[in-house]
Amino acid sequence: MKTLWQHCHVATMANGAYSIIEDAAIVTSGTLIEWIGPRTQLPSGEYPAVNDLQGAWVTPGLIDCHTHTVFGGNRSGEFEKRLQGVSYAEIAAQGGGIASTVRATREATEDELFASAAKRLKSLMRDGVTTVEMKSGYGLDLANERKLLRVIRRLAEELPISVRSTCLAAHALPPEYKDRADDYIDLVCEQMLPALAAEGLVDAVDAFCEYLAFSPEQVERVFVAAQQLGLPVKLHAEQLSSLHGSSLAARYKALSADHLEFMDEADAIAMAAADTVAVLLPGAFYFLRETQLPPMDALRRHKVKIAIASDLNPGTSPALSLRLMLNMACTCFRMTPEEALAGATIHAAQALGMAQTHGSLEVGKVADFVAWDIERPADLAYWLGGDLHKRVVRHGVESNL
Amino acid sequence: MKTLWQHCHVATMANGAYSIIEDAAIVTSGTLIEWIGPRTQLPSGEYPAVNDLQGAWVTPGLIDCHTHTVFGGNRSGEFEKRLQGVSYAEIAAQGGGIASTVRATREATEDELFASAAKRLKSLMRDGVTTVEMKSGYGLDLANERKLLRVIRRLAEELPISVRSTCLAAHALPPEYKDRADDYIDLVCEQMLPALAAEGLVDAVDAFCEYLAFSPEQVERVFVAAQQLGLPVKLHAEQLSSLHGSSLAARYKALSADHLEFMDEADAIAMAAADTVAVLLPGAFYFLRETQLPPMDALRRHKVKIAIASDLNPGTSPALSLRLMLNMACTCFRMTPEEALAGATIHAAQALGMAQTHGSLEVGKVADFVAWDIERPADLAYWLGGDLHKRVVRHGVESNL
Ligand SMILES: [Zn+2]
Ligand SMILES: [Zn+2]
Repeated sequence: MKTLWQHCHVATMANGAYSIIEDAAIVTSGTLIEWIGPRTQLPSGEYPAVNDLQGAWVTPGLIDCHTHTVFGGNRSGEFEKRLQGVSYAEIAAQGGGIASTVRATREATEDELFASAAKRLKSLMRDGVTTVEMKSGYGLDLANERKLLRVIRRLAEELPISVRSTCLAAHALPPEYKDRADDYIDLVCEQMLPALAAEGLVDAVDAFCEYLAFSPEQVERVFVAAQQLGLPVKLHAEQLSSLHGSSLAARYKALSADHLEFMDEADAIAMAAADTVAVLLPGAFYFLRETQLPPMDALRRHKVKIAIASDLNPGTSPALSLRLMLNMACTCFRMTPEEALAGATIHAAQALGMAQTHGSLEVGKVADFVAWDIERPADLAYWLGGDLHKRVVRHGVESNL
Repeated sequence: MKTLWQHCHVATMANGAYSIIEDAAIVTSGTLIEWIGPRTQLPSGEYPAVNDLQGAWVTPGLIDCHTHTVFGGNRSGEFEKRLQGVSYAEIAAQGGGIASTVRATREATEDELFASAAKRLKSLMRDGVTTVEMKSGYGLDLANERKLLRVIRRLAEELPISVRSTCLAAHALPPEYKDRADDYIDLVCEQMLPALAAEGLVDAVDAFCEYLAFSPEQVERVFVAAQQLGLPVKLHAEQLSSLHGSSLAARYKALSADHLEFMDEADAIAMAAADTVAVLLPGAFYFLRETQLPPMDALRRHKVKIAIASDLNPGTSPALSLRLMLNMACTCFRMTPEEALAGATIHAAQALGMAQTHGSLEVGKVADFVAWDIERPADLAYWLGGDLHKRVVRHGVESNL
């Protein structure tokens, strides 16, 4: 079924730039874009359905390429305690921090995890997100990582959003493996990843490379295991210190290295050569009041593709809006609105290995787009929070969010 | 008509604290709260309408006590240019900054201003705001300030939200008065304020006390004129430097002094004595990447009531969510979630002279409240952006937003 969408301007985001078509028309056929261009050049023909977008600006559907949407509990109580002056050490002694999320996640049923994650996902969707990546990583044993990944698959089935599922079993050391990190990595590589991959629950494998998580050597073992399973890798790297995880990720042709505040120019060169996307997470930077900025100049100079994501998670970025992350990317990291929007569309698609089909509005790509009631594309990064009036189209069909 | 609302917990915000009632019931009668308390103590009687709030947390409707919601154009183009590296001086030379908003506002019709402001207001409302203050201040002559104030009155009539209208004619020097600030203040005091007050368009009078706006002496003349008209005053003070505008405001028993990053302890003592509310604007602090924090310790020590507002405006805080401002108050200013919520409810009501009727959930007050699908009140300050599921009740009637 062919549908014509017209009376709009389009920022196609082809080639990572606005690539604007003024007074545009889009023809969708089924789930795909069949034609896009200036309305005056629209091929004549029959259009059984015609949608008037009333002067809206159309962009690709937003892509949130790094989230931890599925978890038990939340940490607002801890957030409040810290602001009341309770020290981090005291909160940790009370079982707070990521340990509390692991505990709450293990205790939660699949249905409970589904229900709470669905609410968060709907908030992202109402703000224009049509594709999302979600990670496991709060289960930290086979049964509980499986539970999280199954919830992710179920969210993909029940909500009108495209989903990529990432296994982050190497997120943190589970309490039962205290002081035995290598043994836990054995478990991840020899049992968890093979089993979860065999069950079809994993699209990519991620790990957390940091002095308080796993060493580059341990991460490399996870990467080797992923490679043997034919799964692409990603990495949390250089958030708090410089272990050159991003260069390691590049060596394994990772889809992305994420966070990156402490990466250096050599890391940028390695990432550029491997075409590994730099995923920046301004929500965590803001929420943690960090001061070390990612090396924007080096990333730009070496033409590393930059994506922006919410990092939605209960401890360091309880972010329910990807559009707000565009503002934070501009305000905190001094990205331009155009770079930020590319970061939440075409470069985010590449960070998920989906750039052939998603992330820009071009003939043959999936018809995922948002028609925004705004003055110009920069508005998406300019307005702070709230709700912009919009229509969201996914797979050629308008969503009723 | 009596309505019962039950199966909820309430943070009443009485006395500026959560003042929680668990498993509460609320009886509204017409527009007012007739009874509120633990459900087990609910007076027996006939309740023609019963609402099950399904375990929600109820708070007073949020009150945004400092906004510049009505303006022509927006400044996303300027936002983008600055991030592309164009200097502030260059943008000013091209007619940017507040001058461009004044120009666009003067050129806009009342209908155009209404339409754009209504969109922004709806975004605030969908996030839980039931009362809002809006300022003029982009007209800067009698006809155009009147136009803005009339739009504010019309928004109050056509949307289900309570509105306070503030005349901020002394916001900036209009171009036609270049180098004649005292002459402009004459115009404000002798013609604009008396005329606009006589037309019933003004609930309070505000001014901008800053080296790049008006001096304390000029502000004092505006305050005297307001006093003669029987209007309460407010002041933009100590945002960029310390002119002791907040002490001046206290001398005139101002409802509030706003911004306040550069105020000192003596100002806090003066404000406390006058019970002038300190309105903090974390969105502007964030958006401008300021580093000078308001003196939280002095404000707390002297028990100055602290409110939080969006400062919604096109140049320095394009904020469409008051809830996001709660997060920024906590993250940037280290307020507690409880202080932040008091700042957007009971203390905001006092900043508008409405604390007798609004801002907390107590018998006899207006039945404006929000039932939030959250775990605990701190969630309101914890989640970053997005959309929390909620039901909004204003004047005893559920809004369909
Ligand atoms: Zn992460
Ligand atoms: Zn203001």
